[in-house]
Amino acid sequence: MRAHMPGAASMALQAADTLSQPRPEGSNTEAPYQAFGHSIFPSSMAPAAERAGAALQQEEWGGATCPLLFIQLNQLLSTPAGMEWREMARWIKFEEKVEDGGERWSAPHVPALPLHSLFQLRTCLQKGTMLLDLDAPSFKEIIDKALSGQPEEAELQPELRERLAALLLRQPRHQPTKSLLRLLAELSLSPCRGKAKIWSEPGAQLSETPLKEQLRNRFKKKVPLGAEAAHVAVGEVEFLEKPFIAFIRLRQGVALGSLAEVALPSRFLFILLGPRAKVKAYHEVGRAMAMLLMDELFQRVARQAEHREDLIAGMEVFLDELTVLPPRKWDPSARIPPLSCLLSPHRRTTIHLLDQQSHSNGNMAAAGDRASLRHPCSREELERTGRLFGGLLRDIRRKAPWYGSDFSDALHPQCLSAVLYIYLATVTNAITFGGMLGDATANMQGVLESFLGTAFAGSIFCLFSGQPLTILSSTGPMLVFERLLFSFSQDHSLDYLEFRLWIGLWVAFFGVVLVATEASHLVRYFTRFTEEGFCALISLIFIYDSLKKMLSLADAFPINWQYRLDNVTSYSCVCNLSSPGHSSAGNDTPLPLPLTPLQPPATPAGLSRTQCLGRGGHLLGTSCQYVPDVTLVSFLLFGGTFLSCTALKRFRSSRYFPAGVRKLVSDFAIILAILASCAVDAALGLETPKLLVPSELKPTNPVRGWIIFPFGANPWWVCLVSVVPAVLVTILIFMDQQITAVILNRREYKLQKGAGFHLDLLCVSLLMVVTSATGLPWYVSATVISLAHMESLRKESATSAPGEHPEFLGIREQRLTGLAVFVLTGVSVFMAPVLKHIPMPVLYGVFLHMGVAALNSIQLTDRVRLLLIPAKHQPDLAYLRHVPLRRVHLFTIIQLLCLALLWVLKSTMAAIIFPVMLLALVGIRKGLERVFSLRDLSWLDSLLPETARKEAEGKHPGKRKEEESNGEEVGDVLGATLVHSRHRGCFGAGAEPGQS
Amino acid sequence: MRAHMPGAASMALQAADTLSQPRPEGSNTEAPYQAFGHSIFPSSMAPAAERAGAALQQEEWGGATCPLLFIQLNQLLSTPAGMEWREMARWIKFEEKVEDGGERWSAPHVPALPLHSLFQLRTCLQKGTMLLDLDAPSFKEIIDKALSGQPEEAELQPELRERLAALLLRQPRHQPTKSLLRLLAELSLSPCRGKAKIWSEPGAQLSETPLKEQLRNRFKKKVPLGAEAAHVAVGEVEFLEKPFIAFIRLRQGVALGSLAEVALPSRFLFILLGPRAKVKAYHEVGRAMAMLLMDELFQRVARQAEHREDLIAGMEVFLDELTVLPPRKWDPSARIPPLSCLLSPHRRTTIHLLDQQSHSNGNMAAAGDRASLRHPCSREELERTGRLFGGLLRDIRRKAPWYGSDFSDALHPQCLSAVLYIYLATVTNAITFGGMLGDATANMQGVLESFLGTAFAGSIFCLFSGQPLTILSSTGPMLVFERLLFSFSQDHSLDYLEFRLWIGLWVAFFGVVLVATEASHLVRYFTRFTEEGFCALISLIFIYDSLKKMLSLADAFPINWQYRLDNVTSYSCVCNLSSPGHSSAGNDTPLPLPLTPLQPPATPAGLSRTQCLGRGGHLLGTSCQYVPDVTLVSFLLFGGTFLSCTALKRFRSSRYFPAGVRKLVSDFAIILAILASCAVDAALGLETPKLLVPSELKPTNPVRGWIIFPFGANPWWVCLVSVVPAVLVTILIFMDQQITAVILNRREYKLQKGAGFHLDLLCVSLLMVVTSATGLPWYVSATVISLAHMESLRKESATSAPGEHPEFLGIREQRLTGLAVFVLTGVSVFMAPVLKHIPMPVLYGVFLHMGVAALNSIQLTDRVRLLLIPAKHQPDLAYLRHVPLRRVHLFTIIQLLCLALLWVLKSTMAAIIFPVMLLALVGIRKGLERVFSLRDLSWLDSLLPETARKEAEGKHPGKRKEEESNGEEVGDVLGATLVHSRHRGCFGAGAEPGQS
Repeated sequence: MRAHMPGAASMALQAADTLSQPRPEGSNTEAPYQAFGHSIFPSSMAPAAERAGAALQQEEWGGATCPLLFIQLNQLLSTPAGMEWREMARWIKFEEKVEDGGERWSAPHVPALPLHSLFQLRTCLQKGTMLLDLDAPSFKEIIDKALSGQPEEAELQPELRERLAALLLRQPRHQPTKSLLRLLAELSLSPCRGKAKIWSEPGAQLSETPLKEQLRNRFKKKVPLGAEAAHVAVGEVEFLEKPFIAFIRLRQGVALGSLAEVALPSRFLFILLGPRAKVKAYHEVGRAMAMLLMDELFQRVARQAEHREDLIAGMEVFLDELTVLPPRKWDPSARIPPLSCLLSPHRRTTIHLLDQQSHSNGNMAAAGDRASLRHPCSREELERTGRLFGGLLRDIRRKAPWYGSDFSDALHPQCLSAVLYIYLATVTNAITFGGMLGDATANMQGVLESFLGTAFAGSIFCLFSGQPLTILSSTGPMLVFERLLFSFSQDHSLDYLEFRLWIGLWVAFFGVVLVATEASHLVRYFTRFTEEGFCALISLIFIYDSLKKMLSLADAFPINWQYRLDNVTSYSCVCNLSSPGHSSAGNDTPLPLPLTPLQPPATPAGLSRTQCLGRGGHLLGTSCQYVPDVTLVSFLLFGGTFLSCTALKRFRSSRYFPAGVRKLVSDFAIILAILASCAVDAALGLETPKLLVPSELKPTNPVRGWIIFPFGANPWWVCLVSVVPAVLVTILIFMDQQITAVILNRREYKLQKGAGFHLDLLCVSLLMVVTSATGLPWYVSATVISLAHMESLRKESATSAPGEHPEFLGIREQRLTGLAVFVLTGVSVFMAPVLKHIPMPVLYGVFLHMGVAALNSIQLTDRVRLLLIPAKHQPDLAYLRHVPLRRVHLFTIIQLLCLALLWVLKSTMAAIIFPVMLLALVGIRKGLERVFSLRDLSWLDSLLPETARKEAEGKHPGKRKEEESNGEEVGDVLGATLVHSRHRGCFGAGAEPGQS
Repeated sequence: MRAHMPGAASMALQAADTLSQPRPEGSNTEAPYQAFGHSIFPSSMAPAAERAGAALQQEEWGGATCPLLFIQLNQLLSTPAGMEWREMARWIKFEEKVEDGGERWSAPHVPALPLHSLFQLRTCLQKGTMLLDLDAPSFKEIIDKALSGQPEEAELQPELRERLAALLLRQPRHQPTKSLLRLLAELSLSPCRGKAKIWSEPGAQLSETPLKEQLRNRFKKKVPLGAEAAHVAVGEVEFLEKPFIAFIRLRQGVALGSLAEVALPSRFLFILLGPRAKVKAYHEVGRAMAMLLMDELFQRVARQAEHREDLIAGMEVFLDELTVLPPRKWDPSARIPPLSCLLSPHRRTTIHLLDQQSHSNGNMAAAGDRASLRHPCSREELERTGRLFGGLLRDIRRKAPWYGSDFSDALHPQCLSAVLYIYLATVTNAITFGGMLGDATANMQGVLESFLGTAFAGSIFCLFSGQPLTILSSTGPMLVFERLLFSFSQDHSLDYLEFRLWIGLWVAFFGVVLVATEASHLVRYFTRFTEEGFCALISLIFIYDSLKKMLSLADAFPINWQYRLDNVTSYSCVCNLSSPGHSSAGNDTPLPLPLTPLQPPATPAGLSRTQCLGRGGHLLGTSCQYVPDVTLVSFLLFGGTFLSCTALKRFRSSRYFPAGVRKLVSDFAIILAILASCAVDAALGLETPKLLVPSELKPTNPVRGWIIFPFGANPWWVCLVSVVPAVLVTILIFMDQQITAVILNRREYKLQKGAGFHLDLLCVSLLMVVTSATGLPWYVSATVISLAHMESLRKESATSAPGEHPEFLGIREQRLTGLAVFVLTGVSVFMAPVLKHIPMPVLYGVFLHMGVAALNSIQLTDRVRLLLIPAKHQPDLAYLRHVPLRRVHLFTIIQLLCLALLWVLKSTMAAIIFPVMLLALVGIRKGLERVFSLRDLSWLDSLLPETARKEAEGKHPGKRKEEESNGEEVGDVLGATLVHSRHRGCFGAGAEPGQS
């Protein structure tokens, strides 16, 4: 571009300058570059953009979709057996290359190309043959027409045409996608010098009908029905002196036999054959053509172009949208993994708009708007009607028409596996919570009660609730409250179950009042700050309790740390039947009566410990108070269970084994870990403390019956005093239930049948009456297990391009899976003989895992970690991009202080009022608005930022986890996937299916 | 680009088409695109490339280097206090952005830019003011000249000029780089509503002298001396109607006061002020300018350009080298982390050449050549002279002149820390190997011998060897051999030490013969296949032995699995003084004589176990054969040590804490783990088995003396028979020693003083004489610990751009650090009172860690893992790109079969000849050439591929480990860093410094 040709250069440049970004949705937003171009050098609308825009505006954007295009690049290579076409790469949404010599497909990646190749391609399209809407029934005819359609000055000699046609008609060698099994089979068949089985002889003619290998190709599953193929063929031919270039669009998709790897109707062909030069350059031009055809916008242009210029214009538009990487800072051969959530053109605009908002300097209001705009509760189900029970009636009216389909929709094999999975999770939950509850309440509520209650409450809820996908369960907060309630009753000599009955009745009453007053819309006042503080507290209690329980084992089974091997003769324990306080040494020397010849004559008549104590004796000796090995084995089991739970959960994101196997193992991680630990325990045979399960169908604690009577054990005024704890429980239940409900009914799940917030709360409240009267545990919706339920009922598109995630279609909404799960749980009551083999340390290990996993899932933990990470190593989180680090740290420290305060309160006198403390958190959060700007808070403590953060993480190349839990990739990305991940593992316990 | 303007379009395109890639090194390789362009559309050489090439060819490539350019982008933002210049991004080698609102620097990343912005920038450069070689002493004058230098048609009004000048002269607000401490200090000072301390008032004038903040900026350390600054200033100004654009190059670097973040002389300025449009577009053009200036080639052009056209031409060349990413498949706002090993333009060409070689179809010869070409042994030190001791003499002649500097070069503080680090590693090594050796040889060689031997052999070697950076140590193979030798001696009733003395003498003799015959060049016959087979065997032996030892603890301290708490009264153990075989129950009922009132009267006179056995008694009772808790605590210690070793080692690559702390912890991982485990053990106080160390300076085993006599204990012919095992040991020592030497003397370490392969072997051989005669362990070079030594003596460039790794300058080659380490080790003999507190399970844990770490460091393990990974999840390894998967699997399976065979042989009769089996591996490897093509083998079993693989991994964005061991990034990337990583943790044991 010298000074002597300024005209050409500047004209071309102006065209590039003023190219407007196509806004296919016809919005009125200014195209940023166009405005800029105008303002610097006013010029007319660039013809390329105009043309391309016209082509695109013919149809509504997002309306009729084009068929998917499968693009294959064949390259002419010279082999010892002659010239041969070989498949080098393929594209659907991303690029896959055949590894040079590796005879395998690379991982799908974002294609990176030299800019130069694109310019060369443009020249090719300008100079080459172009046949649009060609009508030809076979590849042979297409070739003939293309060869004769060369422009005059470049017309080919007849013999050259024949040779070229013969060359083009050769059968290409494809790279099939093989299964591991087939690979190993081939390995065992031809271990020595085995060349890949050649697809066909090098010289063979193209087959008119699809080959067997084509039909058998496993890749076919990836290509959706109705897809079309595009072929790019490049190569160097020694007998050519000028390049032969052709771009062909067929009028209809035509099946071209064995040309493509999979048998698809073909639509586009691009042929570039040139004289011997650099084969690599031809290859890159071929890739450029494929990259161009891969682009959705260009595809539309290419399908509708009427002249060569339309195509060129489409290419200009494409060029204008390219991202470039500088030379020498980036190696073009490195492969960029696909983003996990790819932006469609439409969505990109939305984000851009939001971006602009936040870019206008310091508009805090906008950020606030944004947060409220996106709040998940701004939905019809939560609007107030203003009438008593108005919301409830609306819920019933909304759900009633679906009741029939709630059963018919369950007829799908997927539901079977969902039932099995959720059943196991529910049972594990029932066992662990039952065990812990029994522990906390001196077996007033034990495993058996837990099973019965779960089965009963769950089935009723599934039949009558507003959102039958919800799974009821005991939850962490309830466990903590029961523990506090029981110790309160003990301390004040109250009858626990009777006290609890009255609390339950009051809670049910309050619940009905809340339903009547449509209180569910209050959920919006809980922010992440509140929820995370609560969640962290519960997690810490889980962790603390499990560790405390383990340490208390060391008290129950003390170890003799002073044991010396040399003094083995001095350790013994004998039964002393004399009354205690008596001088034992002189008077009551026990009579030596050996049981066996080897038995030392220490114990009278070989009385066992129980017998001795039963006869009023006491034990004397240096080894009486010690129990060898049990504590240490318990610790080993505890650690082993915890580590194997964690490792098996993480197995999902490992590279080993197919994704299905990994998902299975990860989904059943907890049950597998429990089984393994139980097996180890059984094999060792030591007397570790075991889970207490009654072998008959009677209450775990023989003191109580199946029906709790409201009066008798406690003073009469207790029924009135119960109002106070009932308020606390109501707060708990309301929070647990409603937050879970909001999460489950999020827009991103694309639920069709609507939610039933008020109906759900009513069900839970009424169930409280029954469970309180029968002394069963209380139940609310368990976030984690319900999410697992939904995840296992996902409907996804069957096919997806390599590197692309399958599209999420919705959830199988029905009542049958839940019902089946709870019926099965009820039947499992008869599992007692099996359950009693589970050692307690194993359950403690599971609880430790739950606590740690829940703690890891909240953003607070991330921010605590940030305190320890030097700024330059910190991950690229959205809120770090937008909030100064010291403000982030300050927020974290305040949150930690609140947590510490909660912990201190919980550990001291005021423990029982801890649901109220939760409300205090809401107040503190309000106070924070005086310390932090709204803009900072909108990033640290609202909904959108988390979404953006997930996105940012997803976008980060390479960092993307292999198997992110699917829920985070679906649907409206801007919606709000966060609470999903935020609450994971927090308000419920058990299977935690999606924990990554 | 419509049909009606074909001239303009095609001319511009042709220019783009025919741009040749610049080949600054003046090679004759055809530029691929140029050739291609010619062949399609013959045209003259493009003027842009010609011009740019001319500008570049003025100086030799790689000759005089330009000063580094620091580029800063200031953008005009409107704040409540008025317009303000704010630093938005900076560049040296990579881009760093100021996070919007985050008030922090992003991580350095590869800039990604819309192609559009580059075109806009080109227009700007074509239209705007251009002042090349401006002479101006201050920013004010520069601004004045730029404002008055506008072309006529765009001349500015005087008042507009004044307003613009005032605007441009405002003080910009920089984003300082703060330390964590300062950040926390600020946090505590202004916790509420604290805005960042504003750099200066918004309206302030630019200061003529550097500000205090500029001088205090920590970023200054990153900028090397002599660097210059470039300023890019963009923004929208409401009172402008036409854009004001200026590109200014100053004749010399001029200090412009407080314009830049750091006080550097400024050389380039680019100003783009335009009317209100899209501020984002201006920002992107500014980034485009910075990206252009960041490019080394364009920098040269910009420095030498004489006309506007030169600059444009340089830009064309730059454009031509760009890599592009397609729209909608890639989010331009995602940040690509910098590559760990960046390719310089020169190096890139080299790779390209190699690439071309391997691209020509199936040229196996080339691959073979490549491998041999790169073999690390093709160096002067290993050439044969053909004369007896010729190599040795040459070694001495080479090293002698350096002897003085070998001591003077050690005067650097870095050497002190190296001494401490290597001392600890050596002592750990001596303890662990000493413990294991004592175990293997019934304490014939124990910890004390290990300390003395290490100190003696090491010091001698450091004083007289050819490569004094080598650290001598016991090594894994030697340990295995000693174990075999000892059990052989036991089985055949030979005196172990005397037998060993003769073997040592023979080995020394053979060693001298090997030196005389210059056998060291034979090293080249060992391939990766051999080495890995050997390494895997040794690792497995480590793992197997440590586990076996732990299980044997369970035999030594049996657990009573049948223990029942209820039967506590029936467990006891009494001393029976009657002779065994006697009927004990009736006759010898022990007299009850209670020791204490509570003591049961079971044992006569409270005899302890030792006393009882000493008096000829035997123990009777159900608890006699059991030892409670000891085994389980041992297992806990074992597991704890193993896990903490592994975790602490991995800590290096975590994100937490500054890199220095992490490195420290990781370097001292083993000693920390040992200390922690010992502390736990001491706190528990149980009688776990401890390390046996004599408390005085006498042989660990009292049977032996300090001098071993050659005759006496064994038959006379043993001294002749010893030749056979001596041959085996010679093979072992030769392999261990020479492979380590080759690794240490690799070219990438940039050693100045040369190697001494023959001299080293002579030293080792002669030391064998002494250590055999005194019954000390045998010593050879330990790969891992020697590498740690070198790593701790690295010299690196002090400054490096953000995102770039510091340049490696060489190693401090001297003899003093090694000598100090070994003298300190000798002094540590008096540590016995401390050492005897170390429990054996802790040492077993360390050995398990060593075995696992070594196993993990070899490629065989990677390939075994591949067997379990589905093809699509497999990592992007170089050999997988080039060798079909089934061939890789076949190779792995053959290697595993060899390993299994070795294991079986080792476990059976033929154990002692296992060094010979090593040679068999060489034979098998030769046989493999009949099964695999040379091309496949060159990828699977030679040197280059591993390098390429490391590169590929490094290139992979995001996958790069944060802190890769430095050795893998230094110097000649194509050299061969692999054995470095391959041998890590294999042939030696102990500190394993660089294990990632």
